[in-house]
Amino acid sequence: MPYYFSTKLKIGFDEAIEQVQDALKKEGFGVISEIDLQQAFKDKIGVDFRRYTILGACNPALAHQALTLEDKVGTMLPCNVIVQELEDGVEVAAVNPIASMQAISNEQLAQKAEEVAIRLERVIHNISAAAPVVAHL
Amino acid sequence: MPYYFSTKLKIGFDEAIEQVQDALKKEGFGVISEIDLQQAFKDKIGVDFRRYTILGACNPALAHQALTLEDKVGTMLPCNVIVQELEDGVEVAAVNPIASMQAISNEQLAQKAEEVAIRLERVIHNISAAAPVVAHL
Repeated sequence: MPYYFSTKLKIGFDEAIEQVQDALKKEGFGVISEIDLQQAFKDKIGVDFRRYTILGACNPALAHQALTLEDKVGTMLPCNVIVQELEDGVEVAAVNPIASMQAISNEQLAQKAEEVAIRLERVIHNISAAAPVVAHL
Repeated sequence: MPYYFSTKLKIGFDEAIEQVQDALKKEGFGVISEIDLQQAFKDKIGVDFRRYTILGACNPALAHQALTLEDKVGTMLPCNVIVQELEDGVEVAAVNPIASMQAISNEQLAQKAEEVAIRLERVIHNISAAAPVVAHL
């Protein structure tokens, strides 16, 4: 099972971040956390790294339902979408929550994860449809 | 396989957050993101929820190594530690990265996940040792 859904775009990094935010919004997700790994690696261990941002996507209603079903599922929330700068474009990848949550034995939660996975796959699909694509992986 | 390591403490919520931060620091983790779910649910969907915070723990050196081995592992980073208020205490639970990353077919990454899991289990153990415990689950 793939643990992420991804696409590679021929646009700038900041533009990709905006497109991800817009596409997430259309599927009911807000960005609840944002981690700039390039900055973090520079500040904490003095390492130069490519641009790499982790956006934490949260659909509040679905997250609330998930937590009602499984109170420690917060250890796997929010659902991350990463944006990273590669030599030939900008890659966007969303976690597949079915994969990350497969160790949780909870049938109802698995159904919820599937619902979220469908939405996140659609986010990646919609970003690909809206921008020049290098490869839809 | 358990997808988290947890303990339940007889201390206040804010004190628990501080203890988690201290215990993470001793194992080389900084808190790189903090999500207040109680606030988020109130603001976004008008739902009253118990106190529930997701702390994103990151050991920069280990995260950098993991990303070098598997460039999309950021979809599963940082490693979350949740703190939630229950009727009989405050529960702290850290994700088990071996469980969350089991869908990734990468032997070297799996070793790295094991290393991080040992540290996070130690974080939970050390918090339990330092505070009055309801139950070390």
